[in-house]
Formats: sequence, C-alpha cells, structure tokens
Amino acid sequence: MSSVSVVGLGAMGSALADALLAAGHTTTVWNRTPAKAEPLVERGALRAATVTDAATAGEVVVFCVLGYADVHALVDTAGAALSGRVVVNLTNGSPQEARELAVKVRALGADYLDGGIMAVPPMIGSPQALVLYSGSTASFEAHREVLQVFGRAVYLGDDPGQAPLHDLALLTGMYGMFAGFLQSAALVRSAGADVEGFTTTLLVPWLAAMAGGLPQMAAEAAEGAYPAAGSNLAMQAAAVDTLAGLGRAQGVSTELLAPLFALMRRRVEDGHGEEGLAGLVELLHRG
Amino acid sequence: MSSVSVVGLGAMGSALADALLAAGHTTTVWNRTPAKAEPLVERGALRAATVTDAATAGEVVVFCVLGYADVHALVDTAGAALSGRVVVNLTNGSPQEARELAVKVRALGADYLDGGIMAVPPMIGSPQALVLYSGSTASFEAHREVLQVFGRAVYLGDDPGQAPLHDLALLTGMYGMFAGFLQSAALVRSAGADVEGFTTTLLVPWLAAMAGGLPQMAAEAAEGAYPAAGSNLAMQAAAVDTLAGLGRAQGVSTELLAPLFALMRRRVEDGHGEEGLAGLVELLHRG
Repeated sequence: MSSVSVVGLGAMGSALADALLAAGHTTTVWNRTPAKAEPLVERGALRAATVTDAATAGEVVVFCVLGYADVHALVDTAGAALSGRVVVNLTNGSPQEARELAVKVRALGADYLDGGIMAVPPMIGSPQALVLYSGSTASFEAHREVLQVFGRAVYLGDDPGQAPLHDLALLTGMYGMFAGFLQSAALVRSAGADVEGFTTTLLVPWLAAMAGGLPQMAAEAAEGAYPAAGSNLAMQAAAVDTLAGLGRAQGVSTELLAPLFALMRRRVEDGHGEEGLAGLVELLHRG
Repeated sequence: MSSVSVVGLGAMGSALADALLAAGHTTTVWNRTPAKAEPLVERGALRAATVTDAATAGEVVVFCVLGYADVHALVDTAGAALSGRVVVNLTNGSPQEARELAVKVRALGADYLDGGIMAVPPMIGSPQALVLYSGSTASFEAHREVLQVFGRAVYLGDDPGQAPLHDLALLTGMYGMFAGFLQSAALVRSAGADVEGFTTTLLVPWLAAMAGGLPQMAAEAAEGAYPAAGSNLAMQAAAVDTLAGLGRAQGVSTELLAPLFALMRRRVEDGHGEEGLAGLVELLHRG
C-alpha cells in the first residue's frame, strides 16, 4: 500500500480520495476550504493542515483543482516539501500548461505525471473510468497500482503534454458526435417522428457500426494517403446537398455540419474527388 | 416464395437481385444497359425485355436507380402494368420526392413503399444491412419476408417520407461523428502522436461510451426540457475554449466544431446555462 495525498476536494478530488481509501491506501487530504475534508476524514482519510503537510505526507501527491493558476500557487507554497515526491496533476488544462508545470515540479526535485480523467466523479474507481497519463515513465511504472485505482490507466509517453492533448482530442471527437446527434434529432423532431425511438433503435447502433470504419480512416491519416473504399469524396460531396436541402425543407438550421460539407467541396475542387473522406485531415492540418 | 422484379442493376440493384435469388424468390431483372443483367441471368434471374415486362412479372417491383427523375420516367413508361403491384422504391432522395412519387404510383393502382438502404452493396443480404421502410402498412406486412431478404427491415409508418427522412438523419449523425474524428485525428497527428492507436484504443471505445448518453438527450429533445446531468452548458461552454485554444496552438483549423461552440455560447447567453447540451436542438429547430 502507498501513502497518497489528494490536494483539492471538489466532486472529482473527493471521488479520487474515496477510491484510494477503498483500495486501502494511506490517504491524506487537503482543501482550501477545510470543511470539504470532513466526510473523507470520517471515512478514514488523514487531514493535512497545510498543502505543505499534504506534500510531506504522500509519496504520491495528486492535484485536482480548478485550473493551472491554482496548481502553480499550491506547488509554490509546498516548495521543497515536494522534493522526492511524485506529483500527479489531474487538473484540466492544455498540453503547454502541463509541460510548463512539469518543468517547475522537476526543478523542485519531484517527478511529474500529468493525467486526463475521462469520466464524471461517480464513475471514479470503476473500469468505466479512463485516465490518460503522460510524463515520468519510471513514476508511472512505480505507482501503476495507485494510478489504476481511479480507473483504466493508459500511459501515453514521457511528454507531459500528451495526456491533456489526448484528453482534449477525445472531447473533440465527442462533441462532433454530439453535433451530429443534435442535427439528426432536430430533423427527426421537425417531422413529428419519434426522436427517442430513432436514437435508441437506429442512431446508436448505426454510429457503432460506422465507428468501425474510423481505424481505417486513422491509418490513412497517419499515412497521408486516402484511397476511396466505397463511395468516393466526389460522390459524397454531391450527396450531402440532399442533407442541406432536407434541413431547408424541414425548417432546420444546417449550420452545424456546413463547415464539413464546405471542406468536402473544397477538397474535391482541389482535385481529390477520387479519394476518401479522411483526406479532409489535410485541410485541417498539414502533415 | 414471391415473384419480385428489380429495376436498375447498378452495384446496389445487382446486390438486391442476388439476395433475392439466394433466398429462392422468382427474380426478374431489367436495366437500361442490358449487359448488366447478364451475370444475374447466369445465376438464375429472368430477363425482362422492357420495364413494362418487369412490372408485369413481379408482385413486388423494386426500383433502385440513380435518382427520382429516372424513377418517374420508368414508372410513366410502365404505366398500367404496375396496377396491383407493390412498388418498392430504394432510390435515394428526399422525403418530399418520396411523397410525390407515392401519389403517382397510387394513381396507377399500385401500392407504394419507400426504402432507405443503410448499407453498402457487399453488406446486402446480411444482418449488418439495415433497410428503413415507410409507406403502405399492408404491403409491408404482406411482403415482409421479401423485404427482410435485403437486411434488417425497420418499418417507420405510412408516411412515405419517413424512410428517406430517417435515412438522411442517420447520415447526418454519421457525418457529425466523422467531423469529430477528423478534428481529433488532426490534433493527435499535429502532436506527432499515434493516430491509429489513439483511434482504436481510445476514441472508438470512448465514442461508444458517450453514445450511451444519446437516448437521454433524445428524451429531453422530445420533451423540450433539458435538466443538466453532470456539467451544465455554461461549464461546458467555458471548457470548449480550451479546445479552440489547442487547435490554435497546434496549428490545426478549428472550423469544423466552431458552429457547435458558437451555439453553446448563444444558448448560455439566452439564459440556459444551467441546462444540458441537448437544449441546443431548440436553436436548430423550434419544437
């Protein structure tokens, strides 16, 4: 069993501390507003009077606060007390913020791991929770048992920026799916049809089937070569006019997918009509 | 066993005829360019010399051609020969086109079913193929056995426009998911990370997990009430700034999801920040 401190006891930080307690780790907690520690102390957590005490108490010190400004302030306060510790920062932010914090933490003689939690607090501690880690390989290996307490732990390499980058990329993919859902739900509702039935019996299985094609599209994006399987981009670009027309006929705004359809037309105009859809990646980012 | 005619022998029409032959139905085929009928005749199909002969030969007459202009011309040619038949139109088009064609077909004394094929030709005849039907309830019931030959058959009511509407709504949902994938793949590739690994081990399972929330969002859209579960729209709208910032930092265009993020901000400004994401449907279509 390890000694682990959790700094920041919002809904997520409290869930992390509870999962550590449930797994039998010696768990020290600290929060700016001390009252939030009460329920955890009742369940067996040790209370740290200061963030410096929390740093001293844990081999692993987990930060889960509102933003990077808070993490920086807390790390500055704890200072030398973090020496020899492993800082695991689960605060949301950008790759660049993670890399800059890692430099500061290492300068204090601590190891740094960044983490992206792909879960809501009630999921923490279950296999449905996914946590992405990047940063010190040695620390990830040494403390894998602790890190797996929160959920499925995936390690993405020693660049601390990779965990937030992959975190944000997953959110991006999710928001695209949600945009498609919102547009399709608006269309179905505009026709007086059953939006719930459509979503449950048709859309969710359909998206699962279509997601099966994403790894092939990813392989093409990695390669930068886009052979068309099935209907090529020119055929698809012609067909999406029907989608836009349907929106107009139903009085449903078509703004959510308009940029995708515009990119499809642009890629065809650029002479790539015989290729597949994944080639649009080249219009978003030059590989 | 039924007698079924297939009019239009492109890749999809040929796959439909093959599935009928495999299921033991008496299958008559016709194509504008007769050579396309050859391989099917070799496999046991009967050749119709004219589209009128095809209409005469089948209790069920399946049309699978390039567009509605072609279906109208062929129906006009066949005319009275369609009387007493069930026309199953699997040509891609809009709800309005389906409704207009249904009127013409019924005036000839035939029943009308519209169908939307959610599959590529190699999938026809397998349970992975989904075909949406709407139009004559009696004909769907009477010929269910034939219609199920092509794949999983889902009936959506007697308005012939519902099959194309649901077809197009599913494509819309798919394109949203693809837009999210393209954006996430561009982000991951821009960081020099493994796009295939990201997609296979992280994105696809993540999207499957997040799709589990769509039926709840659909129920909210049907109800027009959007209680927030987890983070509300105001919190999400604030967090997506990080996504846009990441795109800028990585040199990746953020145009694909910009309209979604703009709608999120607009809905918050309209005073719905405490609600959930599904409320954006109200900005696309007034329920």
